[in-house]
Order: sequence, then structure tokens, then C-alpha cells
Amino acid sequence: MSTVRVETPGLIDLIPDAVTACLPFASRAFDDLRRVSRDGPGVTRPSYGDNEQAASKVIADAGREQGFEVDYDSAGNLYVTLPGRDRSAPAVVMGSHLDSVPVGGNYDGAAGIVAGLTVMSAIAHMNVQPPQDMRTMGIRGEESVWFGTAYLGSGLALGLLPLDRLDDLTRIDSGRTLAQHIDDLGFDSTALRSDPPYLSAANVAEYYELHIEQGPILVAKDIPVAVATGIRGNARYPFARCRGNYDHAAAVPRDMRRDTVLATADLVMQLDRFWHEIEADGSQDSVFTVGKFYTDPEVHGMTVVPGEVSFTLNFGTTRTEDIKHFHDRVRDEVRRIEDARRVSFELGEAVGTDPKPLDSGVRESLRAACQALSEDDFEMATVGHDAAMFIRAGIPSGMVLIRNANGSHNPDEAMEIDDFGIGCRIMMTAMAQRGLL
Amino acid sequence: MSTVRVETPGLIDLIPDAVTACLPFASRAFDDLRRVSRDGPGVTRPSYGDNEQAASKVIADAGREQGFEVDYDSAGNLYVTLPGRDRSAPAVVMGSHLDSVPVGGNYDGAAGIVAGLTVMSAIAHMNVQPPQDMRTMGIRGEESVWFGTAYLGSGLALGLLPLDRLDDLTRIDSGRTLAQHIDDLGFDSTALRSDPPYLSAANVAEYYELHIEQGPILVAKDIPVAVATGIRGNARYPFARCRGNYDHAAAVPRDMRRDTVLATADLVMQLDRFWHEIEADGSQDSVFTVGKFYTDPEVHGMTVVPGEVSFTLNFGTTRTEDIKHFHDRVRDEVRRIEDARRVSFELGEAVGTDPKPLDSGVRESLRAACQALSEDDFEMATVGHDAAMFIRAGIPSGMVLIRNANGSHNPDEAMEIDDFGIGCRIMMTAMAQRGLL
Repeated sequence: MSTVRVETPGLIDLIPDAVTACLPFASRAFDDLRRVSRDGPGVTRPSYGDNEQAASKVIADAGREQGFEVDYDSAGNLYVTLPGRDRSAPAVVMGSHLDSVPVGGNYDGAAGIVAGLTVMSAIAHMNVQPPQDMRTMGIRGEESVWFGTAYLGSGLALGLLPLDRLDDLTRIDSGRTLAQHIDDLGFDSTALRSDPPYLSAANVAEYYELHIEQGPILVAKDIPVAVATGIRGNARYPFARCRGNYDHAAAVPRDMRRDTVLATADLVMQLDRFWHEIEADGSQDSVFTVGKFYTDPEVHGMTVVPGEVSFTLNFGTTRTEDIKHFHDRVRDEVRRIEDARRVSFELGEAVGTDPKPLDSGVRESLRAACQALSEDDFEMATVGHDAAMFIRAGIPSGMVLIRNANGSHNPDEAMEIDDFGIGCRIMMTAMAQRGLL
Repeated sequence: MSTVRVETPGLIDLIPDAVTACLPFASRAFDDLRRVSRDGPGVTRPSYGDNEQAASKVIADAGREQGFEVDYDSAGNLYVTLPGRDRSAPAVVMGSHLDSVPVGGNYDGAAGIVAGLTVMSAIAHMNVQPPQDMRTMGIRGEESVWFGTAYLGSGLALGLLPLDRLDDLTRIDSGRTLAQHIDDLGFDSTALRSDPPYLSAANVAEYYELHIEQGPILVAKDIPVAVATGIRGNARYPFARCRGNYDHAAAVPRDMRRDTVLATADLVMQLDRFWHEIEADGSQDSVFTVGKFYTDPEVHGMTVVPGEVSFTLNFGTTRTEDIKHFHDRVRDEVRRIEDARRVSFELGEAVGTDPKPLDSGVRESLRAACQALSEDDFEMATVGHDAAMFIRAGIPSGMVLIRNANGSHNPDEAMEIDDFGIGCRIMMTAMAQRGLL
């Protein structure tokens, strides 16, 4: 790869201005996306819905305006392509998802697609033809709110979604299946059932995804961009219960109670302690959340010992071994508390995913690019994104996270276009260092 | 009092058989009460409602059948009287409440009234005329579910209910005020506003209340009757909240979270520890309950840091100093947790009552009666009953608790008539020992 850098002396130095020249184009694309999917104060782009389709058309039109090729796979994912010198070489794919949550913000997903277009436009602006195709992918159906499952478009493109899900999954608002929605839009669910995956490690060299940060860390640190270390895995109990007995809160003494609030609070505090313990053990980026904890509104009362509590457990980590440790700790504490407090826990199905580290080489190049551009080379873990599917497919992948006030999945997302530009420059510089430009 | 025992040698020995002879009468009264207030599997006698009125008529008719006098106070409380030798001497009052919770059991309240009638019938059966009037009181409106406040009838009889409550309180089902309900039944809310209390320490020598145990202790101990030591006081926060911030459960790190479930679980566990500490310090009969603990069902989710929790705190004790210690501990823990976990607690109004010890002399006589009858002289604290009002009025009061399976306030209450008979014998024997027969 050092030979490439020698072959194109000065290329890296041209990147910052080339991206700057393309930011007005990026801003127009964001404006157009917002216009076609506006919903009250935010935007709504249902997976495989009209507004997602309109967003896809905005990206396709913007690509054609730049002279790029446009095509689709059978699942309806959009590809805008800048041809490389060797059309048969594995391509660089950039992108993210077209859809949004209901009344969400304009940047969650869309920023990664516009970033791909912006990088390709900047490459064209520099009159460079890369060694391989550069492709920007507008991915369908990433938000799990619509079909109850995430990564539909990337999963179908990479052959990682079990095909029976085409008929099993139904959209929450329409009741129609995923296959029906794909066919409604003129794509081809039948071909998906028989054809090999459209994308694979054989035809994709590397995958890059730019995404707004969905938390407050970069705003708090006053840093515009972070390099993602990996996608957190998680261990989740979505439907846990503790069962005891409803009793008179004054007439029943302690040793005859089966109090589920005290039992569940005990469990929660022990798992909070576990979180501290693994942090002390060096586990970075772990998170633990009990998002739901509720006594039964039909029967609970101030003067009644609570006989049932429903709750969720949600643990996230970038260390694979922590997942097992969490499940072990839950099991051990549940046994102890059941004995001590005379209750029974029904934890329900445990679900989760393993942590997915991003490619160490790509990550190192992105950090080197930060340094070359005099930006902080701050690294942090991130939440689930389409990149998780590319990692599963064995494709080296990298992610940059953009500072964003007010969180995501709401109309108040607030990414600055200048921060977006820094992210595009970092991705381009890393690609140049890796011989991909 | 020893003189009385000498004057009536053998009286105490006659009590057991006299009560046994009257138990069929007691059983008929229970059957009649159930018949006039049946509601599905249980009974419903709303405070100042038709079924409470029907229950009052059952008791009045049963009293007349035994030749006793019947009258009412302006609040509608029923009095069935066995005249004593000195009609002007302060009376012995026995009784409990006529009303029930919705679809409750037949014994909670009614047992104490039937016990008074049974004791008076047994006295008549023995051809004894007591030194003072013996009165059985059928008390109105003890259950707080109907008007939101307990002890209405006893409070009005003893002048302990603030008179503005006559117009402030409305019944949950009718929307009509307490005064309107009193007048609807032909009683006289106007007289209540001007007349001196019907009952006072000047005209009531002692008050006795038999009540089913509302918890499982006597069943577990296989003991038919307990002597009550006192009525627990309590410290309650019915409308407490913890406020923090809703955040993405994966994207926001620990030090930026304001997690209200962890904060409230922390508080709950510290108060559970407080409960253990005061028990170790010798506080008997204390209870601590968090009957409600719930995240907001409109917005909570497994993947959302919980931004708000609503909860109740309910602490009961027979030691007055524990009440203050509980409030102090709540305040201290709230301050600590607010600092440590970046949340804010809004505890809302604190309510409560001081513990009310039952009269030590009456209690000692009841224990002596247990021993004389070869019964366990087991003592325990109890929950709120009309006796609390008589204690507040300065009237020496005693309570006996009857073994009862399945708790109270439900159709499955299961007092045995033989246990009830033991309670009646204990009360009568204590009265005889105290020179009241």
C-alpha cells in the first residue's frame, strides 16, 4: 500500500478541500431527504414504505447528477457507483440505512449514505479514478421498529437473513409481510430465495459506515468525530418476571412475605455491582439498563405486599467474555434471592448478540487519518448498525461516529455539516492510505 | 375488683358453656349478614350504603330477639344494649364495623359486632345483670375504600372526625357527600355539627373489639386467638417519584446517565436494610412495603434508560420513635442517592399515624383470661381498627384477634366459629375479672 502513496503524491493533501467543495451538494441532499419524508417536527421513513422509497430516489437522483451509475439488488437496496480502473476488483462499499424510526431525525442512517456520495463526489472532483469501484449503498429496513427485526436490507444483500423471515415478518402498520413489501416496490423476493447473495467478501473489499453518535459523549468531550472500536454485544432478558405473593402490607410479618419488589430491587442492585466490578476489571464501554420495572397496575397498592414484578435486563459490552459472566451472575443472584426472599423468578427467553469488533487495520487507518488531519483520534464503542452484518460476512469494516446533540431517534438530532465534513475527510484519507483511491 | 370475684363465685366457670350455648345464635347472625349483602363470591357493604344498612338491621333484629334495647346515634351507628344495674354508670362498649370492602369477606368487621351480641346473650343466658350497661356497637364506615378515609362512624361518634369532612368527603361510587349519605338513611348530619359527641370517656368505661387476624400468623402458629398489643403507626409516601432522564440504553455511558430504576432500587434496598437494623435494635412488629414501583408504561422500554419511576413507601411500627427514624433515613438516603446518581426525588406528601398501644390493664386481663381458659396467651401487634379512635378518645381499649385463613378483604376469609367462641370467652372472662359482669 505504501506504493500507492508514492504513486499518488499529494493526493491526501487534496482531500480536505475536495470534501469542502462537495459539502453544499451534501447539504442539498439532506434538505431533499427531509422534504420528501417530513412528518410533523421530524421525519418518518418506514422500512420498505413510501418515504423510504422517496429517500432512495433522492439519493439515486443525486448520484445521477454526479454522473454515477445507479442500480438495485433484488431486496431493493440502492447502489450508486463510481467505476474504478478494474471493474472486476472487489469494491469499496460505503453507506448506511434509508429508513428512520417514526418521527425521527433526518441524520440517523441518511448521514452515512450522503457521506458515501460526498466521498465519491470529492474523488470525482479530484479527477481520480480509484483502483476499484466505489459504491454508495442506500440500505433498506435497518430500524427494528417496523418489522420487529433490524438489518433487513443488509442481511438480505449479504445472505444473512434466514429466508423464512421473508414470510414470517410483518410490518407493524401494514400487517403485510416483508416479501409482499419488497414485491410491492417492484423488487424481487422470489429471486432472493434462489439467487446467491448480491454482496459477499468476494466482491466487497471493505465497508465504511459513517453514523451520527446516538449518545452525548462527543458533545460532552467537544470532539467532532470518533473512530468506532466495535459494535457492542448484548445479553438481554426482555420478558423477566418475579413472582411472590400479594399480602396485607401490615398484617404479614417479614418472614412470611414473598415480596417481589424487594427481591427484584436486590437483583438489580447486584447487577449494578457486577457492572462496577467488570469496569474495575478493565471492561470498557459496558452498559447495564433495567428499562422496565413495574408492579401490576391492576392490583398493586401502597398497602399490599407486591406479588409480581415485570422487568427487563439489558447488558451491553465489547468484551465477549463479559456476556457469559453476565448470564452467570444473573443465574447465581436469582438462586440466592429465591432462597433468601421466597420468590421465584421467571427470566423468560434470553436474547443477545456477541460483540463485533471492527477491523483492526481499518480502525488503525482511520485513527492515522485523524492524526494526519490534526483531529483527536478518539475511539469509542458503538451500538448496532448495518456494519454488524458486513463484519459477520467477513468483510473488513470501519465506522466513524459524528458528534450529534440531543441523541437520535427523535426530531432534535443536531449534526453539524462541518463535523460531517470532517468525518468524510477522515474516511477518504484512510482509504487513500490503504491504497483504495 | 377482687370483691366482685368474691361476690360472684363461679361466674367465670359458667362462661365457657354460656358462650357455647350462644354460638348457634352467632352462626345465624353471620348467615343473615352474608345473605343480605352477598355479591358474587363475597359480600359488599358500602359505607352508608344499602347493604351496610341491611347489615345494621340484621344486628338490630338479632338484638331485639334477645330482648336488648336498640338505638342509634346521629351518625347512624347502631347500639344494642343490655341494661346494667346502674344505668348512669359508664358503659362497656363492644363492637366493630358494619361495612366491608367491595367483594370482601363476611367476617372483617362483622365478627366484632356478632361477638358483642354473643357476649351479651351469654350474660343474659347466665341470668347476670352487669353493674353497668353492656353495649354492642355496629359502626358505620370503617373501610377507607369508600370515602377515602377510615373510621368515619367511630370518629363521628367520638367527635374525632373534623366536621368539615362531612361535606368534603364523597363516596367513590355515588359522588355524594358523607353528610348527604347520613341524611339519606334518615340520620342527622345537622345534629352532628352542633351536638356534643355521643360517646366519650365520660360515658364509656372500656371498649372491646374482636377482629379476625388479617394476616397468616395465627394459622402458621396454630393458635386460635391472640391478644393485640397495639395498633401500628405508620409513615407513608403514597405518591413518590424519582426523575432522571430518558436516554439510549447503549449510547449513553454510566457517568452521563440519570437512571431512576437504579436510583429507586438503591433507596428501596437501603430502607430494607433500615428495617433489619431496627429489628436488630428490638423493634417488634415493624413492616416495610413498596407496594407500587413502576416505570412509565407509555415510554419505558428495554433499550431506554428509565427517566422516571413512581413508587410508594409504607412503613409500620409499634414504636413511636421508629416513625421519626424512618423519615430521617428516607431523607438521608434520598440526598445521598441524588448526589451519587444525578436524579431528583419528589417524595410528595408524607402521611401517617402514631402507634397506638392498647390499654395495658385490659391487655393484662385478656392475657390472664387466656391462661384461665388454658389457651396460649400469645400477643401481637395489629393494623388499624376502630379501636384506634377509642384509644385517641382516652377510653381504655382491648382487642382480641381471631385466627383466619386466607387473609381479609377477599371472599376467602375463613374464620372458624369455634375460634370465634374462644375469643368471646376470653373477652367475657377478662370483663368478669375486671368487675364488669
